[in-house]
Amino acid sequence: MADWRQRLEDTTDEREDELTEFLSIPSISTEAAHRKDCRKAAEWLEQHLIEIGFDTGLHEVDGGHPLLDAELVVDEGAPTVTIYGHYDVQPPGDEAAWETPAFQPTILDDPDKGRVVRARGATDNKGQLMANLNAVKAHADAGTLPVNVRFLIEGEEEIGGDSLPTYIQRHEDDLDCEAVLVSDTHLWDADHPAIVHGLRGIVTLEATVEGPDRDLHSGQFGGAVLNPAEALVRALATLKDENLRVAVDGFYDDVLEVDDAQRKYMEQVPFDDEGFRQETGAPALDGERDRGPLERMWARPSLEINGLSAGYAGDGFKTILPASATLKLSCRIVADQDPDRIGQLLADHLREQVPDTVDVTIDVLQASDPWYLDPRNDVLEAAADSLASAFGGETVFIRNGASIPVVPDLDRLAPVALMGYGMRDERLHAPNEFFRLESFHAGSKAMGRMLERLGEDG
Amino acid sequence: MADWRQRLEDTTDEREDELTEFLSIPSISTEAAHRKDCRKAAEWLEQHLIEIGFDTGLHEVDGGHPLLDAELVVDEGAPTVTIYGHYDVQPPGDEAAWETPAFQPTILDDPDKGRVVRARGATDNKGQLMANLNAVKAHADAGTLPVNVRFLIEGEEEIGGDSLPTYIQRHEDDLDCEAVLVSDTHLWDADHPAIVHGLRGIVTLEATVEGPDRDLHSGQFGGAVLNPAEALVRALATLKDENLRVAVDGFYDDVLEVDDAQRKYMEQVPFDDEGFRQETGAPALDGERDRGPLERMWARPSLEINGLSAGYAGDGFKTILPASATLKLSCRIVADQDPDRIGQLLADHLREQVPDTVDVTIDVLQASDPWYLDPRNDVLEAAADSLASAFGGETVFIRNGASIPVVPDLDRLAPVALMGYGMRDERLHAPNEFFRLESFHAGSKAMGRMLERLGEDG
Repeated sequence: MADWRQRLEDTTDEREDELTEFLSIPSISTEAAHRKDCRKAAEWLEQHLIEIGFDTGLHEVDGGHPLLDAELVVDEGAPTVTIYGHYDVQPPGDEAAWETPAFQPTILDDPDKGRVVRARGATDNKGQLMANLNAVKAHADAGTLPVNVRFLIEGEEEIGGDSLPTYIQRHEDDLDCEAVLVSDTHLWDADHPAIVHGLRGIVTLEATVEGPDRDLHSGQFGGAVLNPAEALVRALATLKDENLRVAVDGFYDDVLEVDDAQRKYMEQVPFDDEGFRQETGAPALDGERDRGPLERMWARPSLEINGLSAGYAGDGFKTILPASATLKLSCRIVADQDPDRIGQLLADHLREQVPDTVDVTIDVLQASDPWYLDPRNDVLEAAADSLASAFGGETVFIRNGASIPVVPDLDRLAPVALMGYGMRDERLHAPNEFFRLESFHAGSKAMGRMLERLGEDG
Repeated sequence: MADWRQRLEDTTDEREDELTEFLSIPSISTEAAHRKDCRKAAEWLEQHLIEIGFDTGLHEVDGGHPLLDAELVVDEGAPTVTIYGHYDVQPPGDEAAWETPAFQPTILDDPDKGRVVRARGATDNKGQLMANLNAVKAHADAGTLPVNVRFLIEGEEEIGGDSLPTYIQRHEDDLDCEAVLVSDTHLWDADHPAIVHGLRGIVTLEATVEGPDRDLHSGQFGGAVLNPAEALVRALATLKDENLRVAVDGFYDDVLEVDDAQRKYMEQVPFDDEGFRQETGAPALDGERDRGPLERMWARPSLEINGLSAGYAGDGFKTILPASATLKLSCRIVADQDPDRIGQLLADHLREQVPDTVDVTIDVLQASDPWYLDPRNDVLEAAADSLASAFGGETVFIRNGASIPVVPDLDRLAPVALMGYGMRDERLHAPNEFFRLESFHAGSKAMGRMLERLGEDG
């Protein structure tokens, strides 16, 4: 009987066929017209898991897209490992920009990238998810599955849906496990697989400052009443000090400072300031002074004006004193900042800075938790080794400035290892998304090895 | 032979008929389709002036709408008085909002306002212009015209055209005169005719701050590069100090401070702070602290953000770090500020305040002169008396925070008396514009008296 590795080697064609079949389902969660396709993708997965031997359930939580909860118990005494994934995909976007249709998966031989499959969802997340599913199947078929496995596969990742968080909240005890594995990120570069061990949370807010009840003639009225745009601008300018450090009282109170160990992990990441600057297209890198760009993006909260609008800013000129000014602002927050508290601090600060000769309305819209896991952790170390064994190179421990809202929820169950198989250039959310088939198969090997490691540790 | 006053009394019907005829010409200077109507209005006026005995010329300056220059010399030794007016009008705007068509002048008996003529251009400026023309005609017919009169009537007031300024520049010596009279403003209120003796100039500028070459994901990139909106906001916030006084070096250098005499004129103006606040709809009046609202609007420069745009400020939320931010800003300046210098100071200040980790482009767009005339002046005193004699009440000397760009040009010829016959409520530039016929006839009497006064002074 072939071992799991051999089984993976022997079945690459079937696995690729399955992947293209899965990719051909347009399971676009953002579009109501594709609601049935979402269910179809969930059922397709369920069928596969049943064939492997899983007990499965498709759950419509509060009317959302089906959530697939599937469990394969090999030994009541063995550790349980939960693998997260999502079957929903982004809309294709500009269909004319696709060289082959988004939902007609196409396998290509690219001179630079090797064999790739091009389709919406290839790298985000169907390809990575199927790599993991294949590893479990190979182990199960070989009779070597060393741990109990649960798949939690949602259909609302691209819409930030509540089904999975709600499901976790309702069934937290039943979902208890030793590790949560997520493959929905990318290697740092071809020579450096990466474990993401920190994500920023987010707080968004909206403010409107109102003055006169209509746009006023700036000649007739200029100087008589406070310009709402000016009031807003002056308040906004107080949000940071001259070193671009946030100047809101208490803002940094709960920020976990980067310690020496963490700094060492960061220094191991090959990061080229000038190359990165070119990637942004900005004239220079800039931000909280005396902190490097990686630290600023990964380990420091950021505060950005996302939108600003007042008066008339189009072609030509209107000499008006605008009736109102609108702001969209957000903070990316880090462990252990509390999003609700930060939202409150920001709103209070802005409110205090706006004179009462104009009216101000501030709404905190969205608040999600940051996430941080110390890399000195058995699960993350096992994941790092497993990635390196399958992809080669040296695994780096990185953080990501963005949010993956489900991760803090999954973290309630067990340590979460973000061990992605994608590459930066795979055009996720853009036309002509693709996934390297070499990564697809290497991902299966990495997960196969990871399950072994978790079995050994258990 | 009836004197000029009697002639005015005896011919009110003819004068009203003429006015409605003139008002029926849709001489909209802003719309190319009405180019011929502009010429028609100019020719209509020319014909009237010829009948009175004027030597006339219609001048197309650099292809603009015809400029009417008409002169009636009664005595080479007598003073010459120039009367300015404009025959062009605003477009009707929302035609459905007009109770009677904009160019079908309608005479109505309004219970509150008395007899009025409703039509586009009624108060701005055809009604006021014809009142003056009628006064000259009455004097001419009575053989009592005490001064030489020149009419300078343009067709580009509503579009800020260059024909008249250019014409004045080219013929400054020929246009020499003792006084320029302009009736294109309004009484302060029913009991207070008004002479406007100061106008603000304007400087407009546009700035763009550019950072990354596209909107960046605020999670991935937030903290790495300076947000152009933030850079702009921080620069803008330095434009005024905590007392809302402009904090740009040298900005106030040439500002003519309000002296005791000027303050006395201001105090004679019945101004109700709370009533004015209600007119603006703002929660409170506010501006340069320790200066009253009238002084701020009339005698102090103002600096207003007219437009501001960055990122996405519409419904929903985009967590982006915007690629750029755009500003429209203007200053209303007062005597003796130089618009070009102020534009330069502002641009330099902003440029200095924007860090070089973003790119900034600043363009000064428009710069026009302020205008101020000391009310202790024979021409203005004569105008004040003439208005009071015809309209009753007490004439106040006021200033206006807006610009009438042609006035500083006319000022090169002689002292300019802005002696308007309109009322605030006459809906200029709005649907259902009207002009009180009582004011129409009183205006003629005021101008008739003014010409006498200027003859006596001469």
